[in-house]
Amino acid sequence: MQIKTTTIVATATASGKGAIAVVRLSGSKAISIANKVFRSKNNKALSKQKSHTIHLGYIVQGNQTIDEVLISLFKGPHSYTGEDVVEISCHGSTYVQQQLIKLLLEKGAQLAEPGEFTQRAFINGKMDLTQAEAVADLIASEGEAAHRIAIQQLRGGISNQLDQLRKQLINFASLVELELDFSEEDVDFADRNELEKLLHQAQNTIKLLIDSFTLGNAMKQGVPVAIAGKPNAGKSSLLNALVQDEKAIVSEIAGTTRDSIEDNVTIDGIQFRFIDTAGLRDTEDTIESIGVQKARTKISNAQILLYVVDPAFTKISEINKEIKELQHQNPLVLINKIDLHDVDKLYEQTESLQNLDSFLISAVTGLGLDKLCEHLVRLVKHTKYDTIVSSSRHHHELNQTLTAIIAVREGLANGLTGDLLAVDLRSALHHLGMLTGSVSSDELLGNIFANFCIGK
Amino acid sequence: MQIKTTTIVATATASGKGAIAVVRLSGSKAISIANKVFRSKNNKALSKQKSHTIHLGYIVQGNQTIDEVLISLFKGPHSYTGEDVVEISCHGSTYVQQQLIKLLLEKGAQLAEPGEFTQRAFINGKMDLTQAEAVADLIASEGEAAHRIAIQQLRGGISNQLDQLRKQLINFASLVELELDFSEEDVDFADRNELEKLLHQAQNTIKLLIDSFTLGNAMKQGVPVAIAGKPNAGKSSLLNALVQDEKAIVSEIAGTTRDSIEDNVTIDGIQFRFIDTAGLRDTEDTIESIGVQKARTKISNAQILLYVVDPAFTKISEINKEIKELQHQNPLVLINKIDLHDVDKLYEQTESLQNLDSFLISAVTGLGLDKLCEHLVRLVKHTKYDTIVSSSRHHHELNQTLTAIIAVREGLANGLTGDLLAVDLRSALHHLGMLTGSVSSDELLGNIFANFCIGK
Repeated sequence: MQIKTTTIVATATASGKGAIAVVRLSGSKAISIANKVFRSKNNKALSKQKSHTIHLGYIVQGNQTIDEVLISLFKGPHSYTGEDVVEISCHGSTYVQQQLIKLLLEKGAQLAEPGEFTQRAFINGKMDLTQAEAVADLIASEGEAAHRIAIQQLRGGISNQLDQLRKQLINFASLVELELDFSEEDVDFADRNELEKLLHQAQNTIKLLIDSFTLGNAMKQGVPVAIAGKPNAGKSSLLNALVQDEKAIVSEIAGTTRDSIEDNVTIDGIQFRFIDTAGLRDTEDTIESIGVQKARTKISNAQILLYVVDPAFTKISEINKEIKELQHQNPLVLINKIDLHDVDKLYEQTESLQNLDSFLISAVTGLGLDKLCEHLVRLVKHTKYDTIVSSSRHHHELNQTLTAIIAVREGLANGLTGDLLAVDLRSALHHLGMLTGSVSSDELLGNIFANFCIGK
Repeated sequence: MQIKTTTIVATATASGKGAIAVVRLSGSKAISIANKVFRSKNNKALSKQKSHTIHLGYIVQGNQTIDEVLISLFKGPHSYTGEDVVEISCHGSTYVQQQLIKLLLEKGAQLAEPGEFTQRAFINGKMDLTQAEAVADLIASEGEAAHRIAIQQLRGGISNQLDQLRKQLINFASLVELELDFSEEDVDFADRNELEKLLHQAQNTIKLLIDSFTLGNAMKQGVPVAIAGKPNAGKSSLLNALVQDEKAIVSEIAGTTRDSIEDNVTIDGIQFRFIDTAGLRDTEDTIESIGVQKARTKISNAQILLYVVDPAFTKISEINKEIKELQHQNPLVLINKIDLHDVDKLYEQTESLQNLDSFLISAVTGLGLDKLCEHLVRLVKHTKYDTIVSSSRHHHELNQTLTAIIAVREGLANGLTGDLLAVDLRSALHHLGMLTGSVSSDELLGNIFANFCIGK
């Protein structure tokens, strides 16, 4: 990746009219270009000013004043991009912004591509690739969950977990490569036991990150929650009640089958995708059995399963068996229609559910739904993962790394020679490098930064 | 006006998603509130930092990180509002902005009212009222003309013209008031000749500002240009051609009569409102004569008159007479349909127009329209006014001042005594004060600042 020599400019704040807007310059000529159009109130050239200082003055074009502005000065490498950066805080008229950008282009700046400021920050070593990607995620985040993942990643979450590992692997890899140079002498520079220990640890760390992707992706796209149960247990009423309860935007997605309805609901900053499945019952009807089959697929793909029961038709003691059949990791039992029953009695009976979490609710009156929602949020927020992977690119590279690490371990177990181990070790390191961007291609970077907004 | 003691907060940049957003705090607790949520990367408290410096760090809520931000510090009185001001430049996600504002409100800030930052700047003497109003005008400006007026006013255009005058008038007024204390002794502290000279000068200055309002208002609302001429001279074709030529937004306003069509066209940053009037001809038809009457009113209200002529039916030598009848200050003659004539011959004939500016055009082919547009822009840009008044509030106060000054002059001419002169002098000073805000009421200020956007 070549260091860029141009000086770029773009509006960094949201488009449209505001009290103020910020126009950003970055590059070796940022300060001299700004100086050409800036008349400081104290008549001092910007180049004479210290980094991280702010200066009041006018932007002028000939004898015409464009605006009264504040200029923030950042001298490289102590800036966002690592280059000299000038931020011009002007009045937020779209006309003023246009005139200012036009003027800066005339004085030698170039219009920034989407994400070019962050790309320069990456190229100049101010952040690694996962952090650069987190910037775009953070700006796009609209709920607490997506925001939390992005912030964690921006602060180096994934890189911190992998950096130490990568350094140790590089160390081993170089020792193994060294053996190749002395292959005639049959020496082992790399301690096989130590290597196996490291690889075992690497496998666990990476496996955990890979596992977290299901959750991370769910938090980004909406956590899938299947609503299952026998016909007329009250599944659709529950879906409607949850949607009505929603404080944020509701969007209805037509289900892939007539029998499956999905609805996105944001609860406490976390987006859930509730999926109402067809009633589950054994049937001879071919059409209906297809519906039941689809429902089972939906259930197994869902992060959480809400199993709705009508206590008038299902004995609570039988629920354990029914849920076991569905083979889901996170089932919650919802005893519905409690407005028609003696709640205390039902509550006593739930003891037979043993380890299953259960809630007494009425989808029709809304009873018990608050507690259910709180629990759903808790399930997502309290996770075993320190770091959550939410990017499919990261997920892909981690999987590739894992495959290579398993291959090295198998090689070790089978007593393979250094030259064969080295191939898989290199592959593991390559994919780890692709993840953080220490190994990268122009094409990859182009793809990543093209998804940014201009000005970042 | 009471000095505010609260600390206010608002997003200052345009709403929506951007690369960055700026959240602004102002008030005596701005720095301490920011300090409660900011973890500087160098661990130094914001209160220990110098004014006009920038600091990198995290906004935290408990152990949760909201964002990585830059904080700009302005210590009062060296800030926009004159109070302590903290600007937090965060990532431009709407979620981050919301969380940040929520957090600052929890820590003791209050949500700013529209225009409250600028109102505080006014109250703390950082700008006078005309400058504060210019801030809103500047943000709203969408074309060069409106922008130019706003910038000039922001830089103190009107105030500079009136300040000296006001000081001299105050001086005279106090001398006149002094005479009242010594009324028994019949002394004249205030030199009547000097006062008359000053009043004469004040009258001229204020008259010029009042006159500029027609243009100022036109530049803000769109300069009205009437297109007049005999039936079938090509008025509507001209309007269509001008609209098609337009580089910016075209909006069609339904005319007040079926015979009058208006269209807004932005040429070179200046908004023109072209008004196609009914064909002018003497008629016995009652309905048509009403249309002609309305056309004459439109013409006399227009800033510029385009008089369109079809040389096949109107002798160029007769145009002078026809235009004289219309009694307009800025008439331009457009000899239309030149694609059907010998242009050289027409050009020779235009000599008979003497002092009238004329253009040879073809509304159908577009010939000559470029030069016409250039001339229209020149007419607006090259004005005799140093300062242009564009606010009807200013226009009103200037008119009230003028009335009072004329009254004082008449009083002087009629040898009125000091006590009578003093009444009108006070009135003149009152209205000048209302203009710049040195005299103001809460109601007036409320009205002015309510029209601002929040965050300014």
